[in-house]
Amino acid sequence: MRRFVLAITALTFSTAHADEGMWLFNDFPSAQVKQALGTAPDEKWLEKVRLGSIRLAGGCSASFVGSHGLVMTNHHCIRGCLEDLSSPERDLLAKGFYAATVEKEEKCPKIEANQLVAITDVTQAVLEATQGAEGAAYKAKLKEISAQLESACTKGDAKSRCDVVTLFNGAKFHLYQYRRFQDVRLVFAPEFDAAAFGGDPDNFNFPRYAFDASFLRVYEGDQPRPTPEHLKWSSTAAKENDPVYVSGHPGGTERALTVAQLEFNRDVALPWNLLRLAELRGRLDEWMKTSPEHYRVGQSKLRAVENALKALRGRHQAVGAKGFVEGKREEEAKLFAAAPEKTKGAWAAISTATDTRRALWAEFRMLEGAEAFASDLFAHARRLTRYAAEKDKPNGERLPEYSDSQLPQLKQWVLGKAPISKDLEKVMLTWSLTRLQELFGADDPFVKQVLGKKAPSQLAAQLVDGSKLDDADFRKEVMERPGKVEETDAMLVFAKKVDAASREIRKKMEDEHDAVVKKNGELLAQARRAVYGTTGYPDATFTLRLSYGQVKGWDKVKPLTKVSGLYERATGADPFKLADSWVKAKSRLKSDTPFNMTSTNDIIGGNSGSPLVNKNGEVVGLIFDGNLPSLAGNFGYDGRDNRAVSVHGEIITEALSKVYGAQRIVDELKAR
Amino acid sequence: MRRFVLAITALTFSTAHADEGMWLFNDFPSAQVKQALGTAPDEKWLEKVRLGSIRLAGGCSASFVGSHGLVMTNHHCIRGCLEDLSSPERDLLAKGFYAATVEKEEKCPKIEANQLVAITDVTQAVLEATQGAEGAAYKAKLKEISAQLESACTKGDAKSRCDVVTLFNGAKFHLYQYRRFQDVRLVFAPEFDAAAFGGDPDNFNFPRYAFDASFLRVYEGDQPRPTPEHLKWSSTAAKENDPVYVSGHPGGTERALTVAQLEFNRDVALPWNLLRLAELRGRLDEWMKTSPEHYRVGQSKLRAVENALKALRGRHQAVGAKGFVEGKREEEAKLFAAAPEKTKGAWAAISTATDTRRALWAEFRMLEGAEAFASDLFAHARRLTRYAAEKDKPNGERLPEYSDSQLPQLKQWVLGKAPISKDLEKVMLTWSLTRLQELFGADDPFVKQVLGKKAPSQLAAQLVDGSKLDDADFRKEVMERPGKVEETDAMLVFAKKVDAASREIRKKMEDEHDAVVKKNGELLAQARRAVYGTTGYPDATFTLRLSYGQVKGWDKVKPLTKVSGLYERATGADPFKLADSWVKAKSRLKSDTPFNMTSTNDIIGGNSGSPLVNKNGEVVGLIFDGNLPSLAGNFGYDGRDNRAVSVHGEIITEALSKVYGAQRIVDELKAR
Repeated sequence: MRRFVLAITALTFSTAHADEGMWLFNDFPSAQVKQALGTAPDEKWLEKVRLGSIRLAGGCSASFVGSHGLVMTNHHCIRGCLEDLSSPERDLLAKGFYAATVEKEEKCPKIEANQLVAITDVTQAVLEATQGAEGAAYKAKLKEISAQLESACTKGDAKSRCDVVTLFNGAKFHLYQYRRFQDVRLVFAPEFDAAAFGGDPDNFNFPRYAFDASFLRVYEGDQPRPTPEHLKWSSTAAKENDPVYVSGHPGGTERALTVAQLEFNRDVALPWNLLRLAELRGRLDEWMKTSPEHYRVGQSKLRAVENALKALRGRHQAVGAKGFVEGKREEEAKLFAAAPEKTKGAWAAISTATDTRRALWAEFRMLEGAEAFASDLFAHARRLTRYAAEKDKPNGERLPEYSDSQLPQLKQWVLGKAPISKDLEKVMLTWSLTRLQELFGADDPFVKQVLGKKAPSQLAAQLVDGSKLDDADFRKEVMERPGKVEETDAMLVFAKKVDAASREIRKKMEDEHDAVVKKNGELLAQARRAVYGTTGYPDATFTLRLSYGQVKGWDKVKPLTKVSGLYERATGADPFKLADSWVKAKSRLKSDTPFNMTSTNDIIGGNSGSPLVNKNGEVVGLIFDGNLPSLAGNFGYDGRDNRAVSVHGEIITEALSKVYGAQRIVDELKAR
Repeated sequence: MRRFVLAITALTFSTAHADEGMWLFNDFPSAQVKQALGTAPDEKWLEKVRLGSIRLAGGCSASFVGSHGLVMTNHHCIRGCLEDLSSPERDLLAKGFYAATVEKEEKCPKIEANQLVAITDVTQAVLEATQGAEGAAYKAKLKEISAQLESACTKGDAKSRCDVVTLFNGAKFHLYQYRRFQDVRLVFAPEFDAAAFGGDPDNFNFPRYAFDASFLRVYEGDQPRPTPEHLKWSSTAAKENDPVYVSGHPGGTERALTVAQLEFNRDVALPWNLLRLAELRGRLDEWMKTSPEHYRVGQSKLRAVENALKALRGRHQAVGAKGFVEGKREEEAKLFAAAPEKTKGAWAAISTATDTRRALWAEFRMLEGAEAFASDLFAHARRLTRYAAEKDKPNGERLPEYSDSQLPQLKQWVLGKAPISKDLEKVMLTWSLTRLQELFGADDPFVKQVLGKKAPSQLAAQLVDGSKLDDADFRKEVMERPGKVEETDAMLVFAKKVDAASREIRKKMEDEHDAVVKKNGELLAQARRAVYGTTGYPDATFTLRLSYGQVKGWDKVKPLTKVSGLYERATGADPFKLADSWVKAKSRLKSDTPFNMTSTNDIIGGNSGSPLVNKNGEVVGLIFDGNLPSLAGNFGYDGRDNRAVSVHGEIITEALSKVYGAQRIVDELKAR
């Protein structure tokens, strides 16, 4: 009856299960897929789907679905844009948006879209440049060669974005070249109540009835960008057992963690994050009840917090499930016994580095992770402070997020017009400074330096009220004329004051943990290759991957829901309240149109907004979630119950047409 | 620099460390103590201190410190009473209270004080009655014999309270007979800012400057109860290295847990509780900011939540510390190998029962633990509903909390005049119903039965507004005339509706987990005795224990703070704001009077309010806290850094006299 306790009984890691894998486009196991599904992509198929796939730099996936830059993604991927374009009088998050003509499409201040145009294997160059280096020296060498390769790739073109990507824990390095689009406009978004129908209770659950879809358009030179490479809309509806693929950007997995690292996750990192999120949810939810305007400005943050809380709770249950770590321990012992001699030191090295991480964790997260300064104004202040300090250094010596290839995105963040609520800033900053004092204690020298004789609420009010960083013009001035105006802004002064301590703990973590794990992770990858004889797929890295599978339910859960179920589930009470437009459209909709759908594809956070395509590479759905058992996906995939959840292609076109009167989008989707 | 990560490196369990132990008064290791401290209590000393010790049934300790019923305990132990006696116009929690004459002392509606007058070993009787029984049958037999023994002991006298206490996991059973006092009146309480100076940041930290003291008086027949057996106030101040004893009621420890049980704590129970508390803290704190009245009525609950959150976080860190469980696993393997054959099945049986507990946990906590119905009105409704259902059953067949020996306390709860804030009720109930829906899912049959088509906030408002259970007279009517008025009260109807499901999961948990663990815990205790040859001290059970130790700091922390430090630490900002009375009294106080003090005594939650006594059995301090390393104390004691924290006796009398002008209390304390 209760589905709360995840049943994770026999995940193994050494060999991939059927339908497991977030595969590289340039190393796709077509033969294996052919055997599993009776069909498989060829090179042409792979190129077409790759070019039709889009990454949203903020952490989502998307796809080109029309010949003039039309992009499909999730509603929950563009909540930030909806808030940024809203005001107290115009609540786009609640009410939705539809530009009846191209001219009425509105620019999203912070969205950057990337299209992957080329992948180059640069393993050789990186290994040569880093050979023999350890710890801090390794990190410096890797940073230097990466910056060199990325610069040579972009050639100073702001429309080009190049990233060196570490794969297989450092056994391979690929250079990903993207076309960068920073003029991305809002075309359509449904009401919050339609997109997030079922809210937190239904999140990660199924049966499900969420219309979590939205459309954007990519512009260049103030014109819709021609995109003949877009994905076609399937004229055939996906049904149970159909082979389906997900092309998208899984954000990160940790399927090759050692036991020491799993224990660290279980006992330190996950509880830390969960406690923070739980308290934040309580705060935001109560604070949002204090006024309609507070509700409006807090809404998107609260939903993100609820989603993360549920996802990480599932992950914590997975790694804390009875026997999970013990099984992994036995497997590790076997691999260790069979591993090549020169790789055997890796486990102990990673374990020691993980001990270091335990010791540094609280300080690292509070200072460099800015958890002690949970404020958008602070984030701006830190960016500007560090930009001023980094920009004149040689490219390879800067903090990586200030290297040439990252500057266009940095500038978009700094100069974007997204509004900041000073009321919410004070709630967040008061809370985070309180946590600092609580976790480090009142006698801690850093706490004394930061708070002096002030209470957290007093300091927060002073910093927020004393800052003009909510004004994009002021930020522009600071960025362009560093050193001129900083002393006049309380938050800039504060960010500068805490920067040395933050950089210090970051350097310590990078040198004594990150670099050691990267270097030794490479040895582990070698050991795995030597023993199991296959490379498989690398851990997710928020780069483009292809997952294969089938439309399938699990246990007694059927894979497809229908429009009729939506109307049955509606109660009139939040979060099961139907949007008015759907109430009115009831008689116009076919009651058996498929609504949401589950499939066996191996996905994870970052895949939100990915197109679900059929064997012809045509769109049949829109990924937006996973089921509860999929929350174990960070550590491993179990095809018995791990399911991806998508909006069915049929309800997308039918609702656009019959609920929203957005026929011009349907026409673009269906154009041949 | 950072003290956040607890250093727990080498706790062992098999043999007691110096100063370890929460010893039974009738099995005190005087010879061992004599060797450690050069002094030790004799029988007369033990009897005197036992009779001077008091248990507050709500979960604290206390002591008689005057010849006419004067009781000393912590301020944080009587916060509930201060709130109960407060109103919007009269905030005793914030402002404190002092009855200048005996006539002005005010009755605390919910406080019950118990004085331990006799201990009888009833092991033989219990073992005979339960012989051969397993699971549910064992539970029933144990309940029956316990109720029999308790009834025979109280003889129907409401002033007598008798409890059968399970010790050493069921290897021994003692019958504790208490004198019960239900007329307990408030004599003195300082301001919140003085009692909780340093607030959450200083909680479990040291150096410390909390005046966490209060005084009550026990009445009988409307007159102060004569208490010639009270503890004397020491005329000599405690100083570093002095031998000291704590006589009090540690609430519970789990020092004999098996690995399976420790893992359950680490992976399920502690994270569950921590997440709940963290979210509750966020909610309460933000809600309390919405009005001064909300701040007033939420204050005591918030402090309790913060305290529990910090304590359990420390406990979680202890059991999740690197190597902790592994060390325990090795020890368990050794004990298993050496254990008598007939006890070897116990580990597997406990492990299987713990798997069952994992599976039942969420449902058990939400329903029978009432976490889905977090409301004082619901608590009243459940008590009344169950009282009506249980009261006519034979004593031995009732739920234990409705057995004859428990009824006086039950009646005090039901009929007490403690006010209930309907605003706060709605916040709590909305939240807890939301958690129910979130954790079980909207499709869960129980969730559907409870919520129907309502949102949690709608149901909460309906139940709270539709209940008169905040009126003690109405509760009295329901209790005395069951079956007559229940249908008129929404909360009573609701409590009845969910009672069957709650009882069902409770029975399952008791039969399939609790009874198995109790029965097999007995075998483990036998194994330990056979291998280590000593009984040691039993796990804490909220019964009277004596702990020995010395006034000592740890690391670089000195054991005593002084009045001058309080004034240096004050910032003017909450929670480091000095109470006005202390600001005004500064020149009257000696700057080197000892304020707070650490000692090596092995204590835990429940010990709050215990007297700290010297080798002569005279009061030298008042226990109110432990340090951060002491939070590991649930699982084991490490004398290197585990410290108890008390208010020094000297500041108690000096502040009563010079800050509060409460000379009549000082005179009572010092009377010879």
